[in-house]
Amino acid sequence: MAYLNENYLKLQAGYLFPEVARRVRGFCEANPKAAERLIRCGIGDVTEPLPRAAIEAMKQAVEELGDHETFRGYGPEQGYEFLRSAIAQNDYRDRNIEIADDEIFVSDGSKCDCGYILDILGDQNKVAAPDPVYPVYVDTNVMAGHTGPARRDGNYEGILYLPCTAENNFVPEPPKEHVDLVYLCFPNNPTGAVASRAQLSRWVDYAREHEALLLFDAAYEAYISEHDIPHSIFEVPGAREHAVELRSFSKNGGFTGVRCGFTVMPKLVLARTENGRRLPLHPLWQRRWSTKSNSVSYPVQRGAEALYSQQGRKQVRALVDHYMGNAKLLRDAAADAGLETFGGVNAPYIWVKTPDGLTSWQMFDRVLRELNVVITPGAGFGAQGEGHFRISAFNSRENAEEVARRLKKLR
Amino acid sequence: MAYLNENYLKLQAGYLFPEVARRVRGFCEANPKAAERLIRCGIGDVTEPLPRAAIEAMKQAVEELGDHETFRGYGPEQGYEFLRSAIAQNDYRDRNIEIADDEIFVSDGSKCDCGYILDILGDQNKVAAPDPVYPVYVDTNVMAGHTGPARRDGNYEGILYLPCTAENNFVPEPPKEHVDLVYLCFPNNPTGAVASRAQLSRWVDYAREHEALLLFDAAYEAYISEHDIPHSIFEVPGAREHAVELRSFSKNGGFTGVRCGFTVMPKLVLARTENGRRLPLHPLWQRRWSTKSNSVSYPVQRGAEALYSQQGRKQVRALVDHYMGNAKLLRDAAADAGLETFGGVNAPYIWVKTPDGLTSWQMFDRVLRELNVVITPGAGFGAQGEGHFRISAFNSRENAEEVARRLKKLR
Repeated sequence: MAYLNENYLKLQAGYLFPEVARRVRGFCEANPKAAERLIRCGIGDVTEPLPRAAIEAMKQAVEELGDHETFRGYGPEQGYEFLRSAIAQNDYRDRNIEIADDEIFVSDGSKCDCGYILDILGDQNKVAAPDPVYPVYVDTNVMAGHTGPARRDGNYEGILYLPCTAENNFVPEPPKEHVDLVYLCFPNNPTGAVASRAQLSRWVDYAREHEALLLFDAAYEAYISEHDIPHSIFEVPGAREHAVELRSFSKNGGFTGVRCGFTVMPKLVLARTENGRRLPLHPLWQRRWSTKSNSVSYPVQRGAEALYSQQGRKQVRALVDHYMGNAKLLRDAAADAGLETFGGVNAPYIWVKTPDGLTSWQMFDRVLRELNVVITPGAGFGAQGEGHFRISAFNSRENAEEVARRLKKLR
Repeated sequence: MAYLNENYLKLQAGYLFPEVARRVRGFCEANPKAAERLIRCGIGDVTEPLPRAAIEAMKQAVEELGDHETFRGYGPEQGYEFLRSAIAQNDYRDRNIEIADDEIFVSDGSKCDCGYILDILGDQNKVAAPDPVYPVYVDTNVMAGHTGPARRDGNYEGILYLPCTAENNFVPEPPKEHVDLVYLCFPNNPTGAVASRAQLSRWVDYAREHEALLLFDAAYEAYISEHDIPHSIFEVPGAREHAVELRSFSKNGGFTGVRCGFTVMPKLVLARTENGRRLPLHPLWQRRWSTKSNSVSYPVQRGAEALYSQQGRKQVRALVDHYMGNAKLLRDAAADAGLETFGGVNAPYIWVKTPDGLTSWQMFDRVLRELNVVITPGAGFGAQGEGHFRISAFNSRENAEEVARRLKKLR
């Protein structure tokens, strides 16, 4: 009989968001009246329409596929040149970061890239991940067999967790011990924290010293409002030898349902074989895409390209401003309610300490029951997330205002 | 230093199609005149515009994303219910095959699914693959560490190859030895062969006896023209306990650049743990999608759904008829040229024996040089493909007619 991948059996309960959805469904079925006034601030999903520039570009691209003269079949497996160069130029070279077009790999989203990247890495790597953090980093490592079983607090044996707490402003320092692979996510999901240039430099120093690889998730870079906070790990000298960056169009262009993101894989990044040969990862990543994918839908790639047009940028800016307006409302309301709040300044997430010593799932249930608002329990992001919850600012202004009013009742 | 996945280093040269592209590029640069009359019958990529029904559905879906009232963000990770049920109903239940909506998993293409499915399977599985066959089955197993190094003929240690030759009409019988995982592809890429009900039944019997899992690739089922050839492995009684089916919208709806396919994962399919527990694969597959993906672009899913509308079906039928008209022309021309030809009746591929004892890459170079036509060398599909080449019928009628004329010069 065929063997299954037993590592899957180590995974805890549902993946966080399906579990949230399950509880919300149960609540709504039992309380149809409350269900009518339910507002979701749980999953970090955009709510506003796509930028018009992307809509028009996608429609035109679809129409091209309906015409003999302009029809296209398989595209380049790593993404169309038009998109790779728009990304490299606008997000990097225009900001004085030297990244070549063919160091950009277009994908169907950052969540997917988190899984794909492990394809080309060895199973021997010692992995470090922040705690709390976006659960996909750890879960994909569990699936790949890079961990032991789950401990009682939900964290896994074999991963080095980097505690992110109020004490360190939710930005971990490099550890004393050696690791090969480090996940970093700034602006952070779920805490909303950002890392300064000095803090990121210490991570690049660590990577150089330990020849470690940094997997830097910058999905929320568009939300950075404070001056001098790096938008890319590659703003730090030396990072091109030691980092891969993950980016997404989900949170700037609102592409959560359209699906497009990318990785930046510099040609200078090396990894080793068991017997010590050092080889660039770039050709492996190139091969991964050639063999396992036919890249992203052509109309989607045209939509992503349009986000870099003059109109597109303006429209993206307006979206980000909208959500950050919500973030301010929600953050202020939570603070007014006497809650200890973090984030919400350079990220669309507000990270809140639960009152009265409630666990984060208890708080989830209380907020659902009393305010009819869906939040995300902090414990779903790691053991250090216990006693916290996340409020997402992805919503209409009207809903954000209403949630702000309701939050004040928590007093 | 981070370890890389050394299994990638076992992979031979480029993946087949990038290597073909490289040689064609070289030829065209050296022979600009010949390049002008080049016709590509290599990669199996569609050439005709998308069905109008898909175009209109996709444009409307894009427009929905531009409107507050109809905007959608993240969709269900396994695909929208509207598409899963359209597939289950039309491709299965309407053909008296009992498949539930939630046994359909929407993906960004069959090529991708070939890699994804190995995620949930153990590394201990003994794997069998036809030879010749679509290279992705074997290459993804190499990448996952399920093989030894490549042998001199390009095949890999550790895979049980099932020779497909003129002697067995390119349909292998089940082997004497035990394997856990068997790839089957009918209608076959590259040979164009189909398996009869009796032949598939012997495979299902084998799977029952050995508790093996069949991975059945039916990407070309729309091209079956002969009566009583099964379109799905699930037409064979008992297959729902022992098979997973891979399907694609690339070759029926022309979605090679749009990207959509699906797997059918019956809930009855079991796999085992190392210590002998038997568990259904369905929850693992469900979890894989929840954790590693956010499914396929919403407009793409609407486009795929539209292929099942009354208009959509008619337009798909017209596309298939068009390509099969080409197949007949090309097959007849190759036969007229005195070449031994196979396939081209239930599949858009003609499989041809090279004349004069040429190797398949020698023949590739000869056809490129003398006829300015790109074909695919059989050796790229496995050791048994040596001495053969594949002609793809995916082309305009005009090009197919011209290639037919040129082929006759091979006499």
